[in-house]
Amino acid sequence: MVTDAPIPWKAIHARFAAVLGAKRLLRRREDLLAYDCDGLTLHRCAPKLAVLPRSTAEVVTTVKLCAQLGLPFVARGSGTGLSGGAIPSEEAVLIITSRMRRILDIDLDNQTILVEPGVINNWVTRAVAGEGFYYAPDPSSQTVCSVGGNIAENSGGVHCLKYGVTSNHVLELEVVLPDGTLTRFGGHVAEMPGLDLRGLFIGSEGTLGIATAIRLRLLRQPETVRVLLADFAAMEDAGDGVCRITAAGILPAGMEIMDNFTLNATEDLLQTGVYNRSAVAALLVELDGHAAEVEAACQQAKDLLMAAGAQNLQWAKSPEECERLWKGRKAAFAAMGRLSPSYYVQDGVVPRSTLPQVLKAIADISHRYDLPIANVFHAGDGNLHPLILYDHHEPAIIQRVEQAGADILRLCVEMGGSITGEHGIGADKRNAMALMFSAMDLDTMTRVRQAIDPQQRANPNKLFPTPTGCAEASRRSLRVPVDVY
Amino acid sequence: MVTDAPIPWKAIHARFAAVLGAKRLLRRREDLLAYDCDGLTLHRCAPKLAVLPRSTAEVVTTVKLCAQLGLPFVARGSGTGLSGGAIPSEEAVLIITSRMRRILDIDLDNQTILVEPGVINNWVTRAVAGEGFYYAPDPSSQTVCSVGGNIAENSGGVHCLKYGVTSNHVLELEVVLPDGTLTRFGGHVAEMPGLDLRGLFIGSEGTLGIATAIRLRLLRQPETVRVLLADFAAMEDAGDGVCRITAAGILPAGMEIMDNFTLNATEDLLQTGVYNRSAVAALLVELDGHAAEVEAACQQAKDLLMAAGAQNLQWAKSPEECERLWKGRKAAFAAMGRLSPSYYVQDGVVPRSTLPQVLKAIADISHRYDLPIANVFHAGDGNLHPLILYDHHEPAIIQRVEQAGADILRLCVEMGGSITGEHGIGADKRNAMALMFSAMDLDTMTRVRQAIDPQQRANPNKLFPTPTGCAEASRRSLRVPVDVY
Repeated sequence: MVTDAPIPWKAIHARFAAVLGAKRLLRRREDLLAYDCDGLTLHRCAPKLAVLPRSTAEVVTTVKLCAQLGLPFVARGSGTGLSGGAIPSEEAVLIITSRMRRILDIDLDNQTILVEPGVINNWVTRAVAGEGFYYAPDPSSQTVCSVGGNIAENSGGVHCLKYGVTSNHVLELEVVLPDGTLTRFGGHVAEMPGLDLRGLFIGSEGTLGIATAIRLRLLRQPETVRVLLADFAAMEDAGDGVCRITAAGILPAGMEIMDNFTLNATEDLLQTGVYNRSAVAALLVELDGHAAEVEAACQQAKDLLMAAGAQNLQWAKSPEECERLWKGRKAAFAAMGRLSPSYYVQDGVVPRSTLPQVLKAIADISHRYDLPIANVFHAGDGNLHPLILYDHHEPAIIQRVEQAGADILRLCVEMGGSITGEHGIGADKRNAMALMFSAMDLDTMTRVRQAIDPQQRANPNKLFPTPTGCAEASRRSLRVPVDVY
Repeated sequence: MVTDAPIPWKAIHARFAAVLGAKRLLRRREDLLAYDCDGLTLHRCAPKLAVLPRSTAEVVTTVKLCAQLGLPFVARGSGTGLSGGAIPSEEAVLIITSRMRRILDIDLDNQTILVEPGVINNWVTRAVAGEGFYYAPDPSSQTVCSVGGNIAENSGGVHCLKYGVTSNHVLELEVVLPDGTLTRFGGHVAEMPGLDLRGLFIGSEGTLGIATAIRLRLLRQPETVRVLLADFAAMEDAGDGVCRITAAGILPAGMEIMDNFTLNATEDLLQTGVYNRSAVAALLVELDGHAAEVEAACQQAKDLLMAAGAQNLQWAKSPEECERLWKGRKAAFAAMGRLSPSYYVQDGVVPRSTLPQVLKAIADISHRYDLPIANVFHAGDGNLHPLILYDHHEPAIIQRVEQAGADILRLCVEMGGSITGEHGIGADKRNAMALMFSAMDLDTMTRVRQAIDPQQRANPNKLFPTPTGCAEASRRSLRVPVDVY
């Protein structure tokens, strides 16, 4: 039964309770308020009903009931997303996967693991670390974010420079389509014929259905890890260091740059003593692999960084020393939270070679809007995370912040880059999609989406640039929770 | 104008000549016969019209004209595909991209190259080798196959164990959709939001349109390459060698196994003297990377292979020595051609851990059908290439050969694998798709296809399991050309 006239929520609650049982539902306003936003706290909208299924069968039942009642639905994992992809709407049922947290199968011979979508990212590595394996994608939120959410956002992380993003590490998905049918994309082996619906689903931000079981690829833990920390008197020199390392054919596991503003903020917070407060830029380089390879690459990288003009160079061998050098970078966003009442983090990508030019242009944007912008970024793959700092008490500042953010995104696109590297489009950047894609491109995407979800009931008003739907959406602080970086 | 009644080919010829000029067309039967099949010579069907466009604009014009006239079309690159993906049909216009062979842009700073679809695979590496770069996917046909064809088939190669398949190396595609509109999938950087239509297109075997420009990712050439050759008295031991190397965390660039039948055939042909004719299996392991890393891995691999029961071990350091060890493997298919009037090569994939069991089962199939089957395969990723040898003069043998082939594919699927690793489905394995996918899975794929091509005019009767369309299709030898391996 698909109805056009809205059914009262009381009746909907009763239907869901009759089919799923009251224990699977959240119906009271005070319970539902806890789910009114995700990591992007800019928009808020409490749902009228949330379902917490415990199995694939319960997800199928839930989604089928939504289809029968003509209700849209929004899937939510841990709710750590930074682009508002899991923000509920008043019309939609929120389906929370956090009670689906079983590891279903571990196949070390073929280096795969099968997990439910609510499994936390770093639980995967924890389950196989004893055998010498790990799961590569490591978004900064990895201690809290869910694998299902990683699939939706095609998450990256510090190490995606060398190891690629989530899509490179997913073999198979069990998916509940928006009409409630259960299907399978991909397979136990990587080489699957036909259209790559697995790849299409990954990064589709909840608009094609809900993954209920996910087969991930596992990697062998590297034998050796080394971290180098170099500081520079000019951002161009740090960028030059990155280019020299890449040009030499070294592929670090990660390369991160922090600017003077950021490294001072982290020193204020942590007093690690490892960062040179007068440096314009600090560059962290992580190298991993077999001992002999890492040793050789480390020596070569040191020479290259000195040639690029590094003022100081430190390196770490033991896990404890490595952690000490990384500590400031990992706390960078938390440190910003202490310096500024609010911040808005962008997530643009530019071709690596344009980094110096882009950083200069971001400085110009900072001056133009009179807003401090801190830069901390994945330098190896040109994925910027400029933090626009502001005080949300200041009247009308949000508009200025958003304009500065929009200018940064436009800049990234002009350079041949992207408006998002790993945070997704969600509710936040829908209208920036037109910067990257022609009407024709977007139309093709929409046609493909509609082939799977003709009524566009799966995560409506996300990803695709159409008018927003939630009447309650209210603009609050742009600040993101500190613990998700 | 979309017509239901067929237009006479003479009128169609005239329309195309008026718009594109006669020089872009092949219309005479004797010219068209040269294009009646691809690397799968099993099915043949000469087209009634072939177009050889020289630019994106001409592809757009051609495809638009097809749309106006309601004509299906088949894209063809070099025609080396092994599953009949480029076999013409009587109703379809054949669009050959072999005159679109320009390299449009080389951007070494960001390690990308932009090429036209007719560019030959190894021309890409040739264009950048002087600067120390290369293009990783290396199907055995790389000296003749086109990049456009590689996109259609999501081609692999010996080195995809370490470096992944074509999809991992394509950033951006300019695509002419089946209605003639020009669009772009992906971008200059890898991190692109929205549905991954780039990934969807790669491996879609010509059913979603024609790629007219392709931006590929370039890799730095490895500093050092070493090749190990080990021979074994039992196939299980060779498989054990593969498992030990993988379990030790070594990721070779390639790991190939030849059985006794194959290595004797290559020795008969080449007399290299490097292979032990009494060995049951020969295992080739290629290691690449930085010198220190390769040196260490090579020593470790030698120990592991001896522990697995290797009878003899050889290793090569110089490019010439490496080539000498590889020579037999590279000539394996050619050698088979000398031993047997015909052969039919399968392309199944199984989880690596099941290899010993699968090889035993293939031996059983060989006995059951009384057909010799030679095994030469990408052992590292479980991609089998069993060659069923037969004499096509023998009456009714084709059916037995096809049944044996079908049994092998069924076996691969039962083991959790795939019916194709790198050769695609094309016309050859369409009906085996049902072994791997449920009706629901196939329906989802079809819906996605129809979102882009509602009339299914792009490469009809390929990939998807529907009845065959070419009345002229005739069964000939299953033997594939020798030079494409």
